[in-house]
Parts: sequence; structure tokens; C-alpha cells
Amino acid sequence: MKDLRPLALTMGEPAGIGGEIALKAWLERESRNVPPFYLIDDPDRLDTLKDRLGWPVALKPIEVPEEALDVFPNALPVLVHRLPRQPVPGTPQQENAAAVITAIDLAVEQVQCGLAEAIVTNPIHKKVLVDAGFSHVGHTDYLAELAGKGVRAVMMLACSELRVVPVCVHMSLRESIEHLKMEAVIEATRATAEALTSDFGIEQPHIALTGLNPHAGEGGAMGREEIDIIRPAVERMKREGLSVRGPEPADTLFHERARSGYDAAICMYHDQALIPIKTIDFHGAVNITLGLPFVRTSPDHGTAFEIAGTGVANEDSLVAALKTASAMARRRRGAQVH
Amino acid sequence: MKDLRPLALTMGEPAGIGGEIALKAWLERESRNVPPFYLIDDPDRLDTLKDRLGWPVALKPIEVPEEALDVFPNALPVLVHRLPRQPVPGTPQQENAAAVITAIDLAVEQVQCGLAEAIVTNPIHKKVLVDAGFSHVGHTDYLAELAGKGVRAVMMLACSELRVVPVCVHMSLRESIEHLKMEAVIEATRATAEALTSDFGIEQPHIALTGLNPHAGEGGAMGREEIDIIRPAVERMKREGLSVRGPEPADTLFHERARSGYDAAICMYHDQALIPIKTIDFHGAVNITLGLPFVRTSPDHGTAFEIAGTGVANEDSLVAALKTASAMARRRRGAQVH
Repeated sequence: MKDLRPLALTMGEPAGIGGEIALKAWLERESRNVPPFYLIDDPDRLDTLKDRLGWPVALKPIEVPEEALDVFPNALPVLVHRLPRQPVPGTPQQENAAAVITAIDLAVEQVQCGLAEAIVTNPIHKKVLVDAGFSHVGHTDYLAELAGKGVRAVMMLACSELRVVPVCVHMSLRESIEHLKMEAVIEATRATAEALTSDFGIEQPHIALTGLNPHAGEGGAMGREEIDIIRPAVERMKREGLSVRGPEPADTLFHERARSGYDAAICMYHDQALIPIKTIDFHGAVNITLGLPFVRTSPDHGTAFEIAGTGVANEDSLVAALKTASAMARRRRGAQVH
Repeated sequence: MKDLRPLALTMGEPAGIGGEIALKAWLERESRNVPPFYLIDDPDRLDTLKDRLGWPVALKPIEVPEEALDVFPNALPVLVHRLPRQPVPGTPQQENAAAVITAIDLAVEQVQCGLAEAIVTNPIHKKVLVDAGFSHVGHTDYLAELAGKGVRAVMMLACSELRVVPVCVHMSLRESIEHLKMEAVIEATRATAEALTSDFGIEQPHIALTGLNPHAGEGGAMGREEIDIIRPAVERMKREGLSVRGPEPADTLFHERARSGYDAAICMYHDQALIPIKTIDFHGAVNITLGLPFVRTSPDHGTAFEIAGTGVANEDSLVAALKTASAMARRRRGAQVH
């Protein structure tokens, strides 16, 4: 066990539900076998939060990640990261935006120097960060930048029944069509194949690609992207030795029997990937960033301001994110994971 | 019971699986409570088919629909409609294309003069019909034309857990975005609301509309169609007294709890509607044409040439289409349906 390291969990937007789902995840550490983690956060605000909710959480401020493993069984280790203002649930404050970002920076430093096993990030609220000068689309591309030059991050959503990777993500549907290029399809597919082997332990991963258009274009009758972009990409990757197939009609690719035929589906745009996985497992899906030199996951939901501070937020996705990050990181380090 | 009428089931492409799923549906008439139907088809080819498969189906050629109800308990009533050539499973023949189309014409005549309760259509193969001069996108718009001037047909997909209506259907994704207009959104929603009341017995139907873009555009950050088209359509329909809401992010609208909040979801394009319903219920979904002066349903699959003639085709969707058509038509006629 000397090789065990704790996971770094970032605070996320402190006016959102990140704090309370972290408290819940710690409370379930034994019943749900949650791997040890520390929260990069302000102990004072967590203390206020747990008192308000009346939850029996013991908090233990720590100064360095190394303390986390010993603390975790008996108290939630909180790596002290002070907020300039005490947060108000549901109302993000500009003054705290910089601390939200530096919590991510700290997590990256800690995972890069081997103090943390992997990073799990709580949801952020983009608008308040952008107003504070944050110029990134979201966590994924910020982490890619922190990870170093030339890193291209790819987003995967995973639950126990399905893994999906959208080629185009956070842009309008119109822009997604414009951005759909052979290189992007190939890059997403290669990153997925590599991660399935290194992080998920699948030696010969099988990957299915969707078409962009209804019925995958029906031979060109309803769009040509399949003929001009996706099929040539599939052919090239087959020549490289990858086990890929498609483009296949997206509507027939996600029912139970179809899912058993591949390890991951590469989808062309956001909703094509997110609709099936959120329909199948709304609370349990995990957001995973592929292509980084470290493992990063996050719950697949937002800050949920409308319920923040009430304690009703569902912690399933965070628990799944912690467990997934731990299993991926250990596989990547070559450990046997069952 | 004097008011009971049989359903007219069309042959569809005779080289496809239509014949064998019709035989299966008749075999299950008691075990699955399949409403009485007659098949507009060539008795000779069905005879060959049932012998090849070794299925204990009794066939009874009939000349007029009125004979069907008496025949149905003991034999499958086949309204005689001869094919010029005996079909070869898996290989559509040009010579039979005209008969495929006239089978649809016959069904429409019969339902319009009150001899049939409703129409259920077996899948056709567009290419062979187009080569024979058929100029329609598919069943839906052909039926709209047969139904008369000014009829605008709207496609609904329904299973026991979900009803979805795509605004744009059989066109490329790029064209779907171009075709997305306020009028089309309103037309699809109104037709859905009317059908939910008249054919599904829902007095005050609740309807949810999706956004076109990821996160329903996130306030314009990822596309403006929600702001410019969908929201104004929703506002106008609200003023008309319809219970509508949206545009909502499509990825969070189809999980079990979300589905319980509406009677039908209006989706902006094909895959947005078809992915969730086929993920949830691949075999049981039914295609329903709204907006016609008669009830028409069909199984939600194609001709499946690759398995035609082998008997393995799944009949669930046809059975659901027959049961749905019967229940809808009786509701429309004001009968009490339980």
C-alpha cells in the first residue's frame, strides 16, 4: 500500500453544490468504497456548510497532500485554500473567482509532482470566471494548457454501460458541422483507443463511430460528411491497425445489445454523445479528460445553483468520478485493478 | 362490437421482412392481444414464405375488408393483391414496385370509406420505388398527399415510456438547421397537442421542446436558434393556451425522471428524437403519422434485407404498431379505451 496516493478534489465554484457533494462522498467512504481524497477548499466555509446541513462530517485542515491518507478514515482532509469572501449558496461572487482557478492550479501541481494520484474537479461556473479574466472554454482546455505545450485534451463521458467521446463539444450545432474535419475525428479516436488501453485495461479496444447525419447520410442522400470525412478517417485508422467501424446511424447505436459491440463510441457532436449516456444513467456518468499526462475526471453536472446549500444534490456522479479516477490512475501506473 | 373494424396492414417491400413479421403478429393474436387486421398482399408469396419457415399459419384470401373480422380468429385474412413476380427475400425487384405502392393506395381508400379502422404500413424500400417513379420522401408524405390538399403530416415516435416528434426529419443535419423555422416548430407542436388529446386521450397534454444547440445554446453563447426561433415559438403557443415549456437542453430531457414531466417532447432534428427512443426501447417503438384524417402507424424499422426470409426478424414493433393504431382510432371515434 506504500504506493497509494490520495486524489486531489478541487473546490469548484463555492456557491455551487461542490462542497455538499464532497461532504456526502466522504460520509459514504466506507459504504461505497470511495478512494481516499483531499479537498482543496476553505475549511471555514465547509464547517459552516456541514453545520447548516447538520451532517456528521469531521473536517481536518491539512497543509500538504501527504497528510491526507492518514486523516481520511476519520476526517475529511481539507487542504487549506482560503477564500477572500465566505460564499453564499446560489450566488457566485466575483471576489472568489481567482481562488477557484488557483485551486485547479494547485491540484495540477500536486498531481504532476506525484503527491496526488489524480485530479477530480468540482463544477465551475464559467461566467464568473470569464468576468475575472479566465479565457478558457472550461476545465478541459485549461487543464490542457496547464499540462504543457502540444497537449490536446479529449472529453469522454463514461458510465458503467457506455463510453462516448464527442468530436465537437462546446460550440453551436452549426459550428460543430463546420469544425468536423478528418483530423479531429482521427485525433479523438486515437486518444480514445490509447486511453482504453492504458487507463481502462482493454488491450484491443473496439471503437464505433457515428455518422453526422440521419441514417449516417444514407449513402449521400442526406448529407456527405460520412463520405467525405468520417469514412476516410475510419479507413485510415483501420490501416493503422485500430479496430474501428462506422460511420453508423447514431440512433441505432446505443440500445443495450448495440452497446455490447464496442468499448467506446466516437460521436460527432455534443448532444449525439450526451443524449444517450444521460438517458441511460443520468446521475452516474463521469466526465473524463483523455490526452493529459495525468488522470482527471469530474462529475458530469454543473454547479446547480438552484439547489446549492440545501443538501439535496445527488453525489452519485462525484462518487463515480472519484472511483473512476482512482482506477484509471492505478491502471496507468501499471497496478493490477480489479 | 358492431362498431369494430379491422386494421389494414400493407404488404410493404415484399423482399423485406414485412411478410414474416405479419405472420408472427397473427400467430401471437391471442397471447399478445393483437387487434384484428388483414394483410393487403399476395397469398401465394405468403404461402411460400410460411412453408419455408415451417410456421403453423392458416391463410385465407379475402376479396373485401368486411370478411376480415370473421376470418381473423382462425386464419390470417389476406386481401388479394397479386404481385407480377414472386419476390426473392433480400433482393427487391423493380417489377413489384408498382404493386407495393398500390397496396398503400388501397389501404387509404379502405380507411377513408370506413372499411378499415386504421392503416398500418410495413416498411418500404425507397430506392426501388423511386426508380419506378415514386417521387415522395417516404410513406409519411405520400400518405399526406393521398389524404388531400393542405394536409401536413407530422411524424411521432412512441414507446410505452416516451413520445418524441422531430421538427426536421429526413434531411441532412445541415439542412435541418436551415429548415428550422418558427412556423415548423409551432406546426409540429400543435399537431402533437391535438393528437395527444384526440388519439391518446390526454385532456391537457404537457409538451417539452428541446433546444437545437448544446445546453440549449446557453443564453446565446453556443448558438442563437433558441433565442430567435424556439423561445418565441414557445411564447406564442403559451399565449394560445398550450401547456408547453422549453427550449430545454436535449441531453437532460430523456432520463426516467425527466420523461415523467411531459406527454411528448418536440425535438429539432432526427437524431435528437430517435437516439433517446431507440436507446430506451429499440424493438418496441412505433412510428405514428399525426395530422392525417385517418390513423396510420408503422413499425419503426426498415426492410432488413439482410435477414429477410430467415424468420428471425423481431415483430415487437409491428405488434406495437397494430395495437397503437387500434387504440388511437377507437379513441378518435370516441370509444372508451382501457
